Amino acid sequence: MSDDAHGDPPASTGQQPVGDLTHVRPDGSAHMVDVTGKAETSREAAAQAVLTTRPDVVARLVDGTLPKGEALGTARIAGIMAAKQTPALIPLCHPLPLGAITVDFETDGADTGAEEASVTVVARVRTRGVTGVEMEALTAATVAALTLFDMVKAVDHLAVIGDVKVLEKSGGKSGAWSR
Amino acid sequence: MSDDAHGDPPASTGQQPVGDLTHVRPDGSAHMVDVTGKAETSREAAAQAVLTTRPDVVARLVDGTLPKGEALGTARIAGIMAAKQTPALIPLCHPLPLGAITVDFETDGADTGAEEASVTVVARVRTRGVTGVEMEALTAATVAALTLFDMVKAVDHLAVIGDVKVLEKSGGKSGAWSR
Amino acid sequence: MSDDAHGDPPASTGQQPVGDLTHVRPDGSAHMVDVTGKAETSREAAAQAVLTTRPDVVARLVDGTLPKGEALGTARIAGIMAAKQTPALIPLCHPLPLGAITVDFETDGADTGAEEASVTVVARVRTRGVTGVEMEALTAATVAALTLFDMVKAVDHLAVIGDVKVLEKSGGKSGAWSR
Amino acid sequence: MSDDAHGDPPASTGQQPVGDLTHVRPDGSAHMVDVTGKAETSREAAAQAVLTTRPDVVARLVDGTLPKGEALGTARIAGIMAAKQTPALIPLCHPLPLGAITVDFETDGADTGAEEASVTVVARVRTRGVTGVEMEALTAATVAALTLFDMVKAVDHLAVIGDVKVLEKSGGKSGAWSR
Amino acid sequence: MSDDAHGDPPASTGQQPVGDLTHVRPDGSAHMVDVTGKAETSREAAAQAVLTTRPDVVARLVDGTLPKGEALGTARIAGIMAAKQTPALIPLCHPLPLGAITVDFETDGADTGAEEASVTVVARVRTRGVTGVEMEALTAATVAALTLFDMVKAVDHLAVIGDVKVLEKSGGKSGAWSR
Amino acid sequence: MSDDAHGDPPASTGQQPVGDLTHVRPDGSAHMVDVTGKAETSREAAAQAVLTTRPDVVARLVDGTLPKGEALGTARIAGIMAAKQTPALIPLCHPLPLGAITVDFETDGADTGAEEASVTVVARVRTRGVTGVEMEALTAATVAALTLFDMVKAVDHLAVIGDVKVLEKSGGKSGAWSR
Repeated sequence: MSDDAHGDPPASTGQQPVGDLTHVRPDGSAHMVDVTGKAETSREAAAQAVLTTRPDVVARLVDGTLPKGEALGTARIAGIMAAKQTPALIPLCHPLPLGAITVDFETDGADTGAEEASVTVVARVRTRGVTGVEMEALTAATVAALTLFDMVKAVDHLAVIGDVKVLEKSGGKSGAWSR
Repeated sequence: MSDDAHGDPPASTGQQPVGDLTHVRPDGSAHMVDVTGKAETSREAAAQAVLTTRPDVVARLVDGTLPKGEALGTARIAGIMAAKQTPALIPLCHPLPLGAITVDFETDGADTGAEEASVTVVARVRTRGVTGVEMEALTAATVAALTLFDMVKAVDHLAVIGDVKVLEKSGGKSGAWSR
Repeated sequence: MSDDAHGDPPASTGQQPVGDLTHVRPDGSAHMVDVTGKAETSREAAAQAVLTTRPDVVARLVDGTLPKGEALGTARIAGIMAAKQTPALIPLCHPLPLGAITVDFETDGADTGAEEASVTVVARVRTRGVTGVEMEALTAATVAALTLFDMVKAVDHLAVIGDVKVLEKSGGKSGAWSR
Repeated sequence: MSDDAHGDPPASTGQQPVGDLTHVRPDGSAHMVDVTGKAETSREAAAQAVLTTRPDVVARLVDGTLPKGEALGTARIAGIMAAKQTPALIPLCHPLPLGAITVDFETDGADTGAEEASVTVVARVRTRGVTGVEMEALTAATVAALTLFDMVKAVDHLAVIGDVKVLEKSGGKSGAWSR
Repeated sequence: MSDDAHGDPPASTGQQPVGDLTHVRPDGSAHMVDVTGKAETSREAAAQAVLTTRPDVVARLVDGTLPKGEALGTARIAGIMAAKQTPALIPLCHPLPLGAITVDFETDGADTGAEEASVTVVARVRTRGVTGVEMEALTAATVAALTLFDMVKAVDHLAVIGDVKVLEKSGGKSGAWSR
Repeated sequence: MSDDAHGDPPASTGQQPVGDLTHVRPDGSAHMVDVTGKAETSREAAAQAVLTTRPDVVARLVDGTLPKGEALGTARIAGIMAAKQTPALIPLCHPLPLGAITVDFETDGADTGAEEASVTVVARVRTRGVTGVEMEALTAATVAALTLFDMVKAVDHLAVIGDVKVLEKSGGKSGAWSR
C-alpha cells in the first residue's frame, strides 16, 4: 500500500527540497509513515510488466504446451495471491484490505517471423482505504511475469521482464492520474 | 527454485518440439515437476533488475533523504527476505534451503544533467540442492527494485523497472552459463 | 472471505443462467470480484468438519495419550490461526479483519463397542466487514480436522474427514441462513 | 510432513498401549517428534477430497462459467501452493523440501438428471526425505476442494466436502501401503 | 492486536475474580475474543526490548563491522515487518491494519571500560482500529532485538535480551497509560 | 538458523579484530553468509525466555482462567510454529529443515505472598543441517513468552519478559557448549 500523504505530487513534479518532506525523520531512518489520520476513499491502480521472449515461446505460453503446463492461468493466480502479500514483501507498505484484483494478459508477435515477441501483464487493484494501491498492482504484475518466466525458462533462458510501471491510479487527494 | 531436468538447454536453443518434453502432462495441466531423482550439486545464480528514475531521485536514494528514509539497505533486506519466499510466490517452484544470498546496488547518472538515471540491483543466490536458483535470484532482485520504487514513488511516479534477467548460473547438468 | 454481491442466493436456488452473472468476466478468467462498493455489516458464519476414526482413537484424542501429545487444544489453535490465513490460501478470497474466532469439538462414540467414532469440529467466525466469512469458518474447521488427523495417523491411517459444510451464516444482504 | 518413526503401523492395527509409545512425553504435551536420526528415502503419498454439489454446478465448474471464473485451474494452483505451506498450517508437521506435486480432478454426474454430482480432487506429493508426505497430500487436496467450494458457493451454499483420506503411500520403513 | 474489551483495566489493578470475566468461556478453552462491537478509535502503543552484550560488540553493531554486516538498519526492517505479522505469530491476536510503525535504537556503554553495554530497541505502532496495538509493538521490538542477537552471536554467544515491556499506550476505553 | 562458519567461537572469546572476519563484506553491507560448503551434522540448541508477573496471574495461567482461555498449551503451539518461521522473521537466517521442537514451562512463585512470580519458557530445537539452531530456539521461546503476555495483559499490563538467552548448543565445528 502506498501512502499518499506525501505520495500524490503531480507525477511530473520537479525535485522536492528535503525541507518540505515532513515525513522524513531527522536521522533519515526507514519507517512506515503515518496514515492513521487520512480519510478512506475509493482507490484504484493499474500497473504492467512485460515479458519478452521468442515468438515460438509466446505461442506455447498461449497453447499450454510448456514443460510445466498451463501458463497464463497459473500466472494470473500467482499475481492475485501476490497482491495480497504486498505488505509482507515490501517493508514499508501498509496492510490494506483489497476489494478487487484482476490480472490480464495481452500477447504480441506470437508465431510471427519476428525475432522477439512479448506478453504484457496488466494488473488492476481496487480498495476502499486510506492510501493507494500502486504497490499492490505492481507486485501482482511483477509476480505474474516472474511466474511466466519460470514456465518459459526451460525453453528460453534469455527471456527478459521489463517496462514495469504504474499505468494509472485514482482516488486519494491527488485524484485521477494516468501515465 | 527452477528444475533443470528440463531446464538446462543451451540458452540459445531453438524451439523444442512438444513430443520431446517428457515433463509435459498429457492434458497440459500445471504441476510441480519431479526433481526427487536428481543429484544434489552446488548451484549459483545471479540476476538483475534496473530502476530508472530522475538523476535527483537517484541522488536522494543514495543519500537517504527520501520520504520513507534509508532506501538501499531497506531494499537489500527486502530482496534477501523475498528470495526465501520464492516457493510461496511462484506456484511451481520447489522449496530449497538457500545457502547464501547477496543483494548489491550500482547507481548510474545520479545528480548529472542527464534526463534519466538508474539503480541496478544484482542478486546472487547459492545453494547445494537438486535444482537451480534462478527464480530465487530474480525474485530477490525484483522485490528489491519494487522496494526502491515504493520509496521513490512519492517524488517520481514515472519510475520504471526493467531489464530483469538472469545474468549467469552454474551447477546442475548444464554446467556454467553466462549471458 | 466470501463475496455475497453475487453470493447470497436462496441456498436452495436452481441454476442461474450465465447471462445473469454480472460478475463473470467475458473470457471466463478467474478474478477477485469487486466488493469495494458494499456496505460494512456485522457478519457471522459457522462451519464444521468431522473426523471419523476408531473409538479407542477418539478416546486417546480426548485423554491426550496420542504420540504427538495433547490433540484438541493443538487443533483448536491450528484452526484459529488458519482462519486468519484464509486469503493467503484460497486465491480469490478477500482479506478481512476477523473480529472473533472460536473452534469447538464434540466427540461421539469414544470407547464404545461401535466400529467407528467421530470428532465434530465446529468453527465460528465473526467480522464487521463487506463480505461474508464462510470460507474462514470452513478453513478453520478443516485445518483443525487435518491437525487431528496428523495426530491420530500414527495409530489409524484409515481415519477420514468428511461432512465439511457451512452450518449457518448471518449478515449481508441475504440475511440469516441456517442449513 | 508426517513422522513415521511411530507413523507406519499396519493401517489396520489395533490399539497401541500407551506404554509402547516412546514418542509420548510424560506430561502428554504436544511436541514435534524427533526425526533427525531417520534415513532419507524416496517417499510418495496420494490423498483425495470430494466436493458434492448439484449436477448443473459441476457442469459450470468444468465449462468455466462460475461467477469467479475458471475454477479447476485455480483450485489446482491453490492446492499445489498449500502443500508447500503444510508445516505452517499443521503445528506439529516437519518442514520438508517437496520434490513434486500434482493435483487432478475427476467429475461425476455433471449435467445428469441425478440429484447430486461431484468433483474428486486427487493430490500426489513426492519427496526425498526423512518422513512421509501424507499431510502435504491431504492439505493439497483439501485446499483445492475449499477453493472449488469458494467458487461454487454463490450458486450452491449447500455444497459439501467429504471423503478426505489418504489413498496410498510409499517409502519409509513401513513400505508401500494402499487403502 | 490486543482486545481491550477486557484489556484496559487500571494497570495496577488487583486480581480480577473469575466471575467478572465475561470473556472466559465456560470450558476455559482458548479463543479469539469478540471485538466486532467495539468502536474504532486512534490507538498507539510503544514497547521496548534491551540487548545486553559486551561494550566492544555494541561498538561494532554501531559501526557496521559485524560478520553479517550492517546491523541496526537490518534489525529495524525486521522489526517493522514482524509487526505486520503479529496476528500470524500470536494465536489469539486480531488482524488490524497498521497505520504507522517506527523502530529506534539507543546504545549505552559502547566502547567503555564497563563489563556490559546495551542496545535498547523502542518500537511505536499506531492504528485506527477496534483494539490496541501493544502486541504489535512488543513483537516489533522483540524481533528487532532477536535480529541484533543473530548478528552479534558470532562474537558473543552470551548476549541476553531483557526488559521487554509495554512503555505506554493510548486510545481505547481506558485512555492513555504510561508505565 | 545461525551460521557457525563464523559462529562457533569460544563463547567467552574476546573481541575479534575486523581483519579476521572473512565473512564481512568490504562495504559492510548485510548479507546471508555462505554455508553451502559446510558439512551436515546433528545440531541442537536450547534457549529460554522468562515472563515475570504477579503470583495470582501465574496461578491463573496455570489453572486456565485467563480471559482468553487456556494459556500454556496455546503458547507452546505458538512457539513451535514460530520456530518454523524463523528464516521468515530474522532476515539473515538460513532456512533449515527442523527435526524436532519442544517447548516447556516452569512456574515459580504462583499464589505465594511474593510480589512477583514467573514462568520460564524453555525451547529445544534439533536438526541435521549445515548450521546451528540457536535462533530457532530463541524465536520459539520468545514467541511463546509473547503469547503468554498476550493472555495475561488484560489482568497485568506491567508484565515483563526477560532473561532471553541461549542455554546450550551442540553440533557444528565448535562442539557442545553450555552456558
